[in-house]
Amino acid sequence: MTGSNKGALARVSALSSQFAVNKTAADTSILGLGNPIEAMAAERSAASFPVRQLTNFLDGGEEATALRERLMSEIERDPLFQNVDVYDLTKDQLRERTMKKITRLVHYVVAEPEEVTYQRLSLIGVVDMGLLTRTGVHYGLFFGAIRGSATPKQFSYWISQGAAELKGVIGCFCMTELGHGSNVAGLETTATFDEGSDEFIINTPHVAATKWWIGGAAHTATHTVCFARLVVHGKDYGVKSFVVPLRDPTTYDLKPGISIGDIGRKMGRDGIDNGWVQFTNVRIPRQFMLMKHCQVDRHGKVTQPPLEQLTYGALIGGRVSMTADSAQMSKRFVTIAIRYAAVRRQFTAKKGEVESKLLDYALHQRRLLPLLAQTFAIQFSADEILTMHRSLLKNIDSIDPSDKASMGALIEELKEVFATSAGLKAFSTWACAETIDQTRQACGGHGYSAYNGFGPAYADWVVQCTWEGDNSILALSAGRQLIQRYLQVKKGHSAPESTAYLARSAELAKAKAGSRKIDSQEVLVEAWNAVASAVVGKAGVAFENLTKKGKTADEAFEATSQQRFLAARIHTRAFMIRMFYSRIAAAQPAISGVLKDLAALYALWSIENDSGLFLQAGYFSSEQIDDIKELTDLYLGKVRQQAIPLTDSFNFSDFFINSAIGHKDGNVYENYFELVKRQNPSKPQAPYYNDIIKPFVLRHDDPEVDVTELEDDDD
Amino acid sequence: MTGSNKGALARVSALSSQFAVNKTAADTSILGLGNPIEAMAAERSAASFPVRQLTNFLDGGEEATALRERLMSEIERDPLFQNVDVYDLTKDQLRERTMKKITRLVHYVVAEPEEVTYQRLSLIGVVDMGLLTRTGVHYGLFFGAIRGSATPKQFSYWISQGAAELKGVIGCFCMTELGHGSNVAGLETTATFDEGSDEFIINTPHVAATKWWIGGAAHTATHTVCFARLVVHGKDYGVKSFVVPLRDPTTYDLKPGISIGDIGRKMGRDGIDNGWVQFTNVRIPRQFMLMKHCQVDRHGKVTQPPLEQLTYGALIGGRVSMTADSAQMSKRFVTIAIRYAAVRRQFTAKKGEVESKLLDYALHQRRLLPLLAQTFAIQFSADEILTMHRSLLKNIDSIDPSDKASMGALIEELKEVFATSAGLKAFSTWACAETIDQTRQACGGHGYSAYNGFGPAYADWVVQCTWEGDNSILALSAGRQLIQRYLQVKKGHSAPESTAYLARSAELAKAKAGSRKIDSQEVLVEAWNAVASAVVGKAGVAFENLTKKGKTADEAFEATSQQRFLAARIHTRAFMIRMFYSRIAAAQPAISGVLKDLAALYALWSIENDSGLFLQAGYFSSEQIDDIKELTDLYLGKVRQQAIPLTDSFNFSDFFINSAIGHKDGNVYENYFELVKRQNPSKPQAPYYNDIIKPFVLRHDDPEVDVTELEDDDD
Repeated sequence: MTGSNKGALARVSALSSQFAVNKTAADTSILGLGNPIEAMAAERSAASFPVRQLTNFLDGGEEATALRERLMSEIERDPLFQNVDVYDLTKDQLRERTMKKITRLVHYVVAEPEEVTYQRLSLIGVVDMGLLTRTGVHYGLFFGAIRGSATPKQFSYWISQGAAELKGVIGCFCMTELGHGSNVAGLETTATFDEGSDEFIINTPHVAATKWWIGGAAHTATHTVCFARLVVHGKDYGVKSFVVPLRDPTTYDLKPGISIGDIGRKMGRDGIDNGWVQFTNVRIPRQFMLMKHCQVDRHGKVTQPPLEQLTYGALIGGRVSMTADSAQMSKRFVTIAIRYAAVRRQFTAKKGEVESKLLDYALHQRRLLPLLAQTFAIQFSADEILTMHRSLLKNIDSIDPSDKASMGALIEELKEVFATSAGLKAFSTWACAETIDQTRQACGGHGYSAYNGFGPAYADWVVQCTWEGDNSILALSAGRQLIQRYLQVKKGHSAPESTAYLARSAELAKAKAGSRKIDSQEVLVEAWNAVASAVVGKAGVAFENLTKKGKTADEAFEATSQQRFLAARIHTRAFMIRMFYSRIAAAQPAISGVLKDLAALYALWSIENDSGLFLQAGYFSSEQIDDIKELTDLYLGKVRQQAIPLTDSFNFSDFFINSAIGHKDGNVYENYFELVKRQNPSKPQAPYYNDIIKPFVLRHDDPEVDVTELEDDDD
Repeated sequence: MTGSNKGALARVSALSSQFAVNKTAADTSILGLGNPIEAMAAERSAASFPVRQLTNFLDGGEEATALRERLMSEIERDPLFQNVDVYDLTKDQLRERTMKKITRLVHYVVAEPEEVTYQRLSLIGVVDMGLLTRTGVHYGLFFGAIRGSATPKQFSYWISQGAAELKGVIGCFCMTELGHGSNVAGLETTATFDEGSDEFIINTPHVAATKWWIGGAAHTATHTVCFARLVVHGKDYGVKSFVVPLRDPTTYDLKPGISIGDIGRKMGRDGIDNGWVQFTNVRIPRQFMLMKHCQVDRHGKVTQPPLEQLTYGALIGGRVSMTADSAQMSKRFVTIAIRYAAVRRQFTAKKGEVESKLLDYALHQRRLLPLLAQTFAIQFSADEILTMHRSLLKNIDSIDPSDKASMGALIEELKEVFATSAGLKAFSTWACAETIDQTRQACGGHGYSAYNGFGPAYADWVVQCTWEGDNSILALSAGRQLIQRYLQVKKGHSAPESTAYLARSAELAKAKAGSRKIDSQEVLVEAWNAVASAVVGKAGVAFENLTKKGKTADEAFEATSQQRFLAARIHTRAFMIRMFYSRIAAAQPAISGVLKDLAALYALWSIENDSGLFLQAGYFSSEQIDDIKELTDLYLGKVRQQAIPLTDSFNFSDFFINSAIGHKDGNVYENYFELVKRQNPSKPQAPYYNDIIKPFVLRHDDPEVDVTELEDDDD
């Protein structure tokens, strides 16, 4: 046998022994990674509560779950809504796809009750935030503004034009300008009344007054509701709203005086065709001003509304629904990360043994499970603010403006809903952003793949922290209201339920957990009331001291910004913890146990994170703060046992989870590998191989220049 | 005059009056937004220190600044590096562009000293993280592994093949697998020695052992350094490294047994062609195993290295440079947000007056200026760990392994650099991610435009928190080392400088700020030492108690995860604050004042954020914690005055800032509008107008079905 033959034989032998140990994915059970499908099934079978009952409880009853499931399958089965390839679409592809989906969505929206549409859009938002917004720009902003601010005659007119069905009229909403966002009252676009022609002239005075970020403007909108300063006979009446035609619906040619451009690439939500709009002396009939609240007659007589505040009630709908959105999105991402952690194994104590699940590591529990608990807290708070908002709208609709007492109560209610929704919007959208980011990190490198959903969702989500009221500004506004409540209560006025603790401030200032059970509802709720009272009180005293020293209220509010922000943050957290416990009171016994564990975990973890405030308030001793850290560990352990059943109760199908490592079956490696292969079919070479790689890798040295040839001959 | 003529005249009159108030952008000075260029110039002229001197100080001297400026212009002037369109590139375009840049970059890298390349790549990382990584995969990982782990003969061989110049050899680095990331020792790819043929057989046993995330694999690499379990005569010797050819360099056809696929879309860094690689009984010569540390001879005799730890010294280079990267990236984004805040105005106290700069709002100062201070802290810490790492590498190179005393000292040095770099990597990359995110939010809606840089940079950046050691795991590892130091010190051993405070734990436990000046360097540094000592001590005691109760060290470390994490976080913050002050000691008097303000701001703000720990440690009283909040405000006010000069000292040109609202001139509205227009030329209709929009907006109702026609005749 020659040497080469020997080598060949040895190769065959080595190959066959290699083949013997060649494993398919299903065989991973015998290796360190264990069998992920079995691991998931085991987690699921350890449920200590009826999962379906919790789903119904979260949805608001069996019928609500049935509706939700019907809507989910209407979305999921529709070929236009297939989203397996969504993470590979370019901006241009996303915009086209989004428009195509809108043409389908409208079919449902025009035929069903508004509440069903609300649910449908909420579900769509879980997997396609760009579509939700692009639809919302027409229905929520444009059509909502017409419904809220048009006279009945005007409303009928726009309906007759097709505004409800997106026939001949697709709307956008020209509020924000390049130079003015938060300060709506400072907008600079003008609407000047021209009595001669009975028209308004809409004009953009300079570049920074260009309407900016206008969703739908770049490609889709035929009309806009434009916010502009009403100027009549030289007098500025402040910002009002006007319907302005932008394009001819039959050709999509721009109307005279309209300039529109594409805003282009954004951090996320590239399915929306945001644009900029400039108006150059654009004329519209006087009747295109929305005149429910403020009227301009044929001769330029302006009638301002008696109580402009009441016109704001409808405007906070977006803010209110963003707390619910935060809960939905958090559900999706805690589900993905907890499922992955329940089957992903890494490191082992003993060689040769199956490695440990991430979910069994103490630090991993701390990273994920408080976010799971928080998701419930956000959902219950969202339910509450939704109820408050609906009641407010009903009361606004039915108010008799001449009934002073009722009007006073309504104004109070309005303030309460404003401040509560401001705080909830700010801190729940931030919490959700943090949840997407933390859950991504908890999935390690695989969290960075687009196919697992985190990156695209984060990029799409975070604008929620900025629009419809920048979170910081909303928090300051909620904090301002808290100082005002503090001052009212000090004067002996009563406070609404959310700030009822202020009336007990003297008592709470002295309260201590003492020897009571720290993890009881009684102590945890009182602890949060006590620290909220202390923080709001400190802000209030600082404000009072400044005004006593001669500062104006505005100056004193500005100087107490940090205290106001802190007050809003702590007040909102206390509100969420109270809502959590108050909802548990209505839960069936079979599910209330696990909910109580979640509530305690959330309250304890939140105390840990703000331990300095609790120590300053004197509610807990330093030793008790250490005990709280141990109690947090205890509740982490309890919740860990139910983590998979709890995420199952959120009841999202794999379509809505849309993450290769987040499928319900737990088969992470195969699902992920298959998706990556399907989305990236093998190609022999890179597209730029011939142009760039080949000439580079095979290049020769530059020929050496012999400089002696260039020297002077006479050397 | 007819009515219609009257209307026409009125229109002309209205138009001309409108034209009269039509403003160009330059005229914004007379409006509420003021003139942003003038505002920026005024900020700049208020500098109280020599900006150039601070630039030199940050860079490490005048020569270093000159080198940096030379490198910046070499990048900035190169047409291949133009980046005005980078935010609009698709994944495929980015990959092609990145490869094109590499062909240029190599020209410099092969010709210049390594330290200059380090600087060049660091600058490139500021504007093109994908390019930095794709270059780093070859030079840092592939070539670095060969240099660090090859014998001199092997090294010469790979040089002769073109590995240093990317001629015929482009490398990638097959370490991570689908199923194993952090647990490198658990990798499952095998390298089985076949004595008959004197070859290794590289094999992927199952799907989860597929090499994953391999940068350069999808398009570019001809070779890889593969981490695989060395199996000789049936015995597993653990994970070693092997050079494996992947493609024929002349055709780019895959070698037999190699399967490669594209990983596809990621959250960011889409310029890198990450791929997956499977080896199916791929044969390589025995000599392709990198044998500097571990050798396998012709007969399969394995010689393991005496001290494997020493082979790790080179591996932490990436981790060390990531602290410096954090400083560079933070500089870029605090510059953008502070410049924007210095010219953006919103809201006004009095009607008709120019609105207030964002930078003058108390809360806005709190959002941005501590991040500015932190940027300096990160940079000074990065300089220190770089020095420590260079010294370590020198000592490893020159060690005499038979000198036991020197070996002992070297091992201690190694541990120190490991733990310090682990903590700094974790907490500085997190701090930088937070900085990009917070500065984006501070720019409101405009932060969400891709053209202002935040979104793309965040998506590119955050993988730094996961790779080269997941931040949480690194923090736990640093915390483990702190507990070990605590135990050593308790036994009377000495501690290195970074943990010198542990030797003073008894004294620090009783220390109080008392009546000393809180914002003095003495008190602030001691406060951080005291709280670090308390937190590390608590973790150490918890660990001791667990081992006394019979837990193994591994069990006790696991059970103290949260304490270890906290210990690492606080220890690292204390380290950064000490580094800040120790660098100030070397600063010229003209710049030390402003640096001291920054250091105090950073230390005070950090105390606020962890006030609970300081109260528990008893270092500050509750009243002093309130004082610290006021002192933070005081230093915010000081730093605010110098905010623009301070960001100017970072010395990045507009090219490196690459943000429409972050240009040096402050002309935010025009710069931004012009860029958006240039990148998105107007088109008459959307690309999908004829296919989707037109048929939709002009659609007719479905014809109504008259169901009576379908009824039975006999009804």
